[in-house]
Amino acid sequence: MAQPIRVAILGYGNLGRGVEAAVQSNPDMQLVAIFSRRSPDSFAEPASVPFVQVSNLPEYNGLIDVLILCGGSATDLPEQTPEYVQQFVVVDSFDTHANVPEHFAKVDEAARANNSLGVIATGWDPGLFSLNRVLAEAVLPKGDSYTFWGKGLSQGHSDAVRRVPGVAAGVQYTLPNEESVEKVRNGERPVLSTREKHVRDCYVVLEEGANEDEVREAIVTMPNYFADFDTTVTFISLEELQRDHAAMPHGGVVLRSGETENNHKQVVEFGLRLGSNPEFTGSVLTAYARAAHRLYQAGERGAKTVFDIPIGLLSPYSAEQLRATQL
Amino acid sequence: MAQPIRVAILGYGNLGRGVEAAVQSNPDMQLVAIFSRRSPDSFAEPASVPFVQVSNLPEYNGLIDVLILCGGSATDLPEQTPEYVQQFVVVDSFDTHANVPEHFAKVDEAARANNSLGVIATGWDPGLFSLNRVLAEAVLPKGDSYTFWGKGLSQGHSDAVRRVPGVAAGVQYTLPNEESVEKVRNGERPVLSTREKHVRDCYVVLEEGANEDEVREAIVTMPNYFADFDTTVTFISLEELQRDHAAMPHGGVVLRSGETENNHKQVVEFGLRLGSNPEFTGSVLTAYARAAHRLYQAGERGAKTVFDIPIGLLSPYSAEQLRATQL
Repeated sequence: MAQPIRVAILGYGNLGRGVEAAVQSNPDMQLVAIFSRRSPDSFAEPASVPFVQVSNLPEYNGLIDVLILCGGSATDLPEQTPEYVQQFVVVDSFDTHANVPEHFAKVDEAARANNSLGVIATGWDPGLFSLNRVLAEAVLPKGDSYTFWGKGLSQGHSDAVRRVPGVAAGVQYTLPNEESVEKVRNGERPVLSTREKHVRDCYVVLEEGANEDEVREAIVTMPNYFADFDTTVTFISLEELQRDHAAMPHGGVVLRSGETENNHKQVVEFGLRLGSNPEFTGSVLTAYARAAHRLYQAGERGAKTVFDIPIGLLSPYSAEQLRATQL
Repeated sequence: MAQPIRVAILGYGNLGRGVEAAVQSNPDMQLVAIFSRRSPDSFAEPASVPFVQVSNLPEYNGLIDVLILCGGSATDLPEQTPEYVQQFVVVDSFDTHANVPEHFAKVDEAARANNSLGVIATGWDPGLFSLNRVLAEAVLPKGDSYTFWGKGLSQGHSDAVRRVPGVAAGVQYTLPNEESVEKVRNGERPVLSTREKHVRDCYVVLEEGANEDEVREAIVTMPNYFADFDTTVTFISLEELQRDHAAMPHGGVVLRSGETENNHKQVVEFGLRLGSNPEFTGSVLTAYARAAHRLYQAGERGAKTVFDIPIGLLSPYSAEQLRATQL
């Protein structure tokens, strides 16, 4: 076996932990270090490799093949990706859709100026969902595309539920409207309202003495968050919340409903059912880290997205092995 | 708009017709001619472009950007692809899995010797299914992969039904065993027998005086074809057969059921529901013809498979447009 690909992580939240786990599932990779803005002493739980203060990152020049950036898209990545790509091959999960072109341009310029390479906006949406939308639309130019999300824990909507007076704790799941999904699967091409696309399920722990009906009414009528959806509110105990709702599931489905000659209906579907959103996203970033390293070794430079990267490069197997076993 | 990509078709069976239709749905492409071994006069129905005898193909040197080979894998493509790649950029749908490495080697050698390029083994299986298997396995190295085919018309099994004494006409559909598919979707990783993977549905028109029970028994007990499956036989009239069973539907689903840390289940699914198998396959070949042309223009040479080709190259849109709209 060749030398393992030496990977490091910057940022140790849920996504960083997801990448840490994923790297350990890939024998051709080796985790070198985890960098964080926090002091290494501040982590209660032991990590599998050294924690290093991010200010020491430049010392790792030449010791890391790919740096996986696990910060947030709001403030971390717009700074970090253009900065660190100057010194390292990097991968990020930038997901502010509207700002992708600007982010790409900055990373591309910094990478080219420093003979480096950066893969941006990987993960599953953007990422694998984007890839499948482009693939299906290229194959079926006449048609409509649909994306349904869920079942997924929504952080923003869970926060909104918890701000309602009388709510002690709670979570909110977004689910596809199954009836609409079935219509699309069967080749219909419906125009769907917000209400017809998704439903929302809330699991709420009441504060002592709070009134169920008042809390339910306050949630389901909340503008922007719930009023435009069919929302169910289920009251549970704190024990049930902790026992049954601690995971971070997510997922969704991308559908292309198209037609070819003679009104033949053709439907392409890509779906994810994720027991842990950050661990799956971390797994995607890790596969793209492998591709980034290979592209860099092949002489590629600049910024890349999922659209630019052959799928074969994500696999630990060689092109020859893939041809012999997977075609 | 740039010059359209000039496409030609060799072979005018179901797949060739599918490609003909697909090219017409893509405004950045232009169909130049359809080549066939048959005499141009032998085609009853008018085609959208000139029919040309295949012996005249060399005269089209410089007039075709991509030649899409629509012959069969048994005898046509093993000869045609290595031959025509010497003069044209080609795309084929070679699908004899075991012979892919040998076919690749021949096409690669012929292409490189002639400064050309050939994309082999596109379509949906091999092709899009292969792509999704490799993608999902790269992201979820710990897990199991499953492929279910159908609902699909099976040519070989339909022929077997028609050979049974007493059968005047008939078709056979292969369907996934839905119970097994649901198990995999839900994150179970069952070991499935042949019977648990697929079921077979036959629609049969009896000959005058034939006995239903005898024909059914002969079909469901037929070794290799039906004995290992749960098979249903439905007797219909010739009118019903012609009215309801003339299309060539197919499809299937590729599932990866994996896990990340803490036994979190992660399921990736790619599925197709195709109203017309040859028209969808033709659409895939056409998208890969676009990619082949771009790769050739970018200086790539040799044989390529779906694993080597960035998804963005399949789309009529530029990388910049895709980043702005699809990420």
